[in-house]
Amino acid sequence: MTTSQPASVDPKALRDVLDGRWAHVRRDARENLHDPDFLPVYGESVQSARDRVTRAAKKLAESGRVGSGFPKEYGGEDDAGGSVTSIEMLAYVDLSLMVKAGVQWGLFGGALQLLGSKRQHDAYLRDLVCFDLPGCFAMTETGHGSDVQQLRTTCTYDPDTQCFDLHTPHEAARKDYIGNAAKDGRMAVVFAQLITRGVNHGVHAWLVPIRDENGDPMPGVTIGDDGPKAGLNGVDNGRLSFDHVQVPRDMLLDRYGQVAEDGTYTSSIENETRRFFTMLGTLVRGRVSVGGSAGSATKLALDIAVRYGDVRRQFAAPGEDREIVINDYLVHQRKLLPALARTYALHFAQGELVETMHDVQTAVHVHGQEIDERAQRELESRAAGLKVAQTWHATRTIQMCREACGGAGYLQENRLPHLKADTDVFTTFEGDNTVLLQLVAKGLLTGYRDTFGSLDGWGRIGFIADMVRETVLERTAARALIQRLVDAVPGRDDDVPLLDRGWQLKMFEFREKHALEGAIRRLRKNATTDGMAPFDMFNDVQDHVLKTAQTHIDRIVLEAFVAGVDRTTDPAARQLLDTLCHLYALSTIEADKAWFLEHGRLTAARAKLLTSTVNHLLKDLRPHMVTLVEAFGIPADWKATRILEEEADRQEAMASRDAELRAAAGQGTPEGTATALEVAPAQ
Amino acid sequence: MTTSQPASVDPKALRDVLDGRWAHVRRDARENLHDPDFLPVYGESVQSARDRVTRAAKKLAESGRVGSGFPKEYGGEDDAGGSVTSIEMLAYVDLSLMVKAGVQWGLFGGALQLLGSKRQHDAYLRDLVCFDLPGCFAMTETGHGSDVQQLRTTCTYDPDTQCFDLHTPHEAARKDYIGNAAKDGRMAVVFAQLITRGVNHGVHAWLVPIRDENGDPMPGVTIGDDGPKAGLNGVDNGRLSFDHVQVPRDMLLDRYGQVAEDGTYTSSIENETRRFFTMLGTLVRGRVSVGGSAGSATKLALDIAVRYGDVRRQFAAPGEDREIVINDYLVHQRKLLPALARTYALHFAQGELVETMHDVQTAVHVHGQEIDERAQRELESRAAGLKVAQTWHATRTIQMCREACGGAGYLQENRLPHLKADTDVFTTFEGDNTVLLQLVAKGLLTGYRDTFGSLDGWGRIGFIADMVRETVLERTAARALIQRLVDAVPGRDDDVPLLDRGWQLKMFEFREKHALEGAIRRLRKNATTDGMAPFDMFNDVQDHVLKTAQTHIDRIVLEAFVAGVDRTTDPAARQLLDTLCHLYALSTIEADKAWFLEHGRLTAARAKLLTSTVNHLLKDLRPHMVTLVEAFGIPADWKATRILEEEADRQEAMASRDAELRAAAGQGTPEGTATALEVAPAQ
Repeated sequence: MTTSQPASVDPKALRDVLDGRWAHVRRDARENLHDPDFLPVYGESVQSARDRVTRAAKKLAESGRVGSGFPKEYGGEDDAGGSVTSIEMLAYVDLSLMVKAGVQWGLFGGALQLLGSKRQHDAYLRDLVCFDLPGCFAMTETGHGSDVQQLRTTCTYDPDTQCFDLHTPHEAARKDYIGNAAKDGRMAVVFAQLITRGVNHGVHAWLVPIRDENGDPMPGVTIGDDGPKAGLNGVDNGRLSFDHVQVPRDMLLDRYGQVAEDGTYTSSIENETRRFFTMLGTLVRGRVSVGGSAGSATKLALDIAVRYGDVRRQFAAPGEDREIVINDYLVHQRKLLPALARTYALHFAQGELVETMHDVQTAVHVHGQEIDERAQRELESRAAGLKVAQTWHATRTIQMCREACGGAGYLQENRLPHLKADTDVFTTFEGDNTVLLQLVAKGLLTGYRDTFGSLDGWGRIGFIADMVRETVLERTAARALIQRLVDAVPGRDDDVPLLDRGWQLKMFEFREKHALEGAIRRLRKNATTDGMAPFDMFNDVQDHVLKTAQTHIDRIVLEAFVAGVDRTTDPAARQLLDTLCHLYALSTIEADKAWFLEHGRLTAARAKLLTSTVNHLLKDLRPHMVTLVEAFGIPADWKATRILEEEADRQEAMASRDAELRAAAGQGTPEGTATALEVAPAQ
Repeated sequence: MTTSQPASVDPKALRDVLDGRWAHVRRDARENLHDPDFLPVYGESVQSARDRVTRAAKKLAESGRVGSGFPKEYGGEDDAGGSVTSIEMLAYVDLSLMVKAGVQWGLFGGALQLLGSKRQHDAYLRDLVCFDLPGCFAMTETGHGSDVQQLRTTCTYDPDTQCFDLHTPHEAARKDYIGNAAKDGRMAVVFAQLITRGVNHGVHAWLVPIRDENGDPMPGVTIGDDGPKAGLNGVDNGRLSFDHVQVPRDMLLDRYGQVAEDGTYTSSIENETRRFFTMLGTLVRGRVSVGGSAGSATKLALDIAVRYGDVRRQFAAPGEDREIVINDYLVHQRKLLPALARTYALHFAQGELVETMHDVQTAVHVHGQEIDERAQRELESRAAGLKVAQTWHATRTIQMCREACGGAGYLQENRLPHLKADTDVFTTFEGDNTVLLQLVAKGLLTGYRDTFGSLDGWGRIGFIADMVRETVLERTAARALIQRLVDAVPGRDDDVPLLDRGWQLKMFEFREKHALEGAIRRLRKNATTDGMAPFDMFNDVQDHVLKTAQTHIDRIVLEAFVAGVDRTTDPAARQLLDTLCHLYALSTIEADKAWFLEHGRLTAARAKLLTSTVNHLLKDLRPHMVTLVEAFGIPADWKATRILEEEADRQEAMASRDAELRAAAGQGTPEGTATALEVAPAQ
């Protein structure tokens, strides 16, 4: 049950595979993104952090590394994939700067670019790109974060003044957690209900000046400060309220809905909900970037913890001079290695997602093609699912790495506290993870046929009762390869080795299909149960529905990893990745072993074998732990941590002193020279 | 499969049960510990936090609420249980202040009290209690945190000078993470290898002045600052190095080991390792306090999240005017309620632990009885196990509560970020959790017969190969009741209802016994396997060994909860606690369902029934969620959070505005008055 591993693997060969389609963007960042002003500072006040990050954002703009996603005529490269890859690289350097950049060029810039008109681009994009026009993305309200279709801010058109009246009716409707609002923002893209001629046409977006040249709030605009947060101290999150602010008609970002001088509303998309989700759909880049950035933070934390675990020693082994390196402990490997395997798996899945996003968005926004609704829905679902997987994995893994570094991990100088505090909100912003899981589930339940509608997944559930749907799993990349592997597994799979990739794929697939069919069956039953309130029909199976989404994401991620291994040409690197992929697959099955046992897909004996096989994989991978983090290619100065060199130096100094003492003791210990080392070992 | 619940339960009746033996200490804190200077301040600098907490510590000393654990002649009450209960209450108010107090009166004070002599008490205890003598507990070194028997600092006696020479030979031997060191400490209890007449007698402790009256470091003492940390900003953690510092002979804390003028070493405990662990054992209070404080932080986080979830609304239900309260969602209940059940369970287990600790320590230190070695080992094991359970539960639960409060949970003004950052290190300090689990496991493997020895659990493993041991589980409180419940379960237990308490207890018991016997069997096999390195003999089964400890802790905790329910006299409170105890038992079994399936103790059908039973329990408990946190009795001003009242007010304002708009719309909507509410619901 063990795998054979090459003696050593060149981390560069692994890095080439990981770097993927936007390798040039990654290499450029590694080689050129070395301004020390971009690095985090430990122990600074909120005020200094904000000032520092504002200066850094301006400097970053000057470096020309922020605009690649914008059209060529505004200095960009029309490269959506490149722009999210840049953000992913920036996340290694400083997460506050990453979020500040994400707000300015991703959210604010993306909304202007994708929802605005040529005229609006001409007027603002250049200033936006060079950070002369810092801006906000003002969607979330205190009362509505997940259900943004229900925003309470109104923007009502008056033909007499040719202006909209933007208004915050009560505190629950104030814009909240808005990046760039508390200090820097001069404009905001504000989302509100568009009302004209007495009809509410749903949520639209406007460009609204919020501060004048002196930095004072514009008339009718009240700006609040969210104050100190758990992390992201460099980002000035704030609150915006509007007291009947007059917004000129031409400030409506009107690509998907226009209001004529007389107040007539027009849109190429008739259905209001569909229109709303089409608008939201264009903004998928933010969610993709958060997932990618969470991945970077996770890699950095693992890099620190794995390297520390390779020099840190604790507890003597019988008969050994030096204490044991903590990476040698089985339980330490059980913490670090499955997390590392999952990080690789998610990296490959993220790579596929970025490619898909790039292709879908380039078709529409660069080549002017029609939106492929189905592809767009599937992209949104993937983006949501991976955002969930990446950010929860980041929260858990960074916490684990902090603990794996002991007290040293709690000191800011060792970076982990910042990684932890800064990424914590990733599970909430750009879509609460639980709500996003529900969105993914809804896509699966309806086969992307009819996924418009509120993110909640409640609404009318008649569609579930009515639908007759055969569950067909969508394949990701390497479709043919995966199908071949799955098909090669015999029907009675109890005798297939656990290290058979086809069997692993089949288990993931079976679980997803079974969970999905079961959820549909239960929903249908509830929908036809007399007297059951519509809310209860869904709520009753909510845990099952979310499990379905989770199993779907796991499969997508495994398939991406398999495809990544398949693309690897260097034999040693391929062999190592193949083993790591086994660890991802088997540790994922192990974590949900109960399900497989319950559903007759694992016998008790095989379930026990699974655990020992995972332990064997850990042994096989142990010699390659450092190589696996080296492959992330994180430049030393980006790590901004003291833990690594210092611990190695200390251990060496202690070892050489201990050796001296042992030598002296070996020559007989004269009175008065007994040492710390001589305590009798524990009996 | 549902339980019947009273319509309402008086939280005070629950509180009386929770308050337990030191109810008077809890009531006193609730009624009198209301100095606003004790509360956390958000967004302050490290420097201000340290200054504030130093002032608060002094004020706390003046309030007379810190000395109850000290002997009566020094103004205390000889009340060990009362002193850890006070710390637990202080943890609600501010965790930095709690840790500062824990360092001063628990660790520094405890070491002086329990390891020092009457003469030393007379000289220092009064100043210590009133905080005129702030001090440190300098045990951990940069190179040795878990394996403190291997400390590298030496303290070598010279009969000529009648002084010890205290020395830090290299950087790995410097004292690190020491509370009170960076700013306030005037003295430190320093742990080092005692060497006299050329013989190393193992780790002992000395009282060492580290700063003079002006606050400058004493000659030969180098003081460093650990700088900003992830949390606990108010605690001045630092580093201490000693360059041949002369420490007078009478500064050795010499209760367990004495050095005569001529350098002769004497001790009432012959065996060096045994002596070391006896000394360490007296310091168990610190570990008990950390567990209790983690419990308080968890309760506070749950109080915030449960109350917020009861007013926060998101997503409309079909046919309802208002959106759904988020506590009504099954998946939200799945997050909050099992955590709440486990918090109750741990509370009862902590209560038992404090009683045991109080009784064991009072016998020895107040009544001067001999140490009961077995009781002492069992106490240490319980303290270690509960510290692990409480602190990991705190880390996970506070994180979950943060996420359950969405973006609001990320703002410091809502307290959760502080709770999270401040408690994070609890899983590391006072014993790394993984190392402590090993300590617990070792106690189980040897039946407390022979648990001396390094915390590591390696050492010679011959004792495992040799030992013939019948596994007999130690019972906790309510032994007779529990045995009766277990005995009443028929041998073929597949038909016993899942809500049979006896069956639940039996499952916990079976799992522990089986895990323990399996671990012993595997260790014995390895010990007799030719060519297996001693390290590998243990490392090979490390995961299994730690699982044994985990199952043991789960059982101890369940038994404590059962005993707690049994003590409850108010019928409604008892019924509610009984249901909550079902939830703890069944959600714990559910989390390890795979194990029970693998070992033939759950059929697949019964495993599925388990999940639906847990969901039923959530439904039964839903109406009592707020009561269950109300019962913790946390005064409103201790919560130091804005989230609760504000969200309720906002939701009311929004509801009343929405109702107005609906009424207006019902009377026909004149042009220009369309509102946010009128967007068509999602189809």
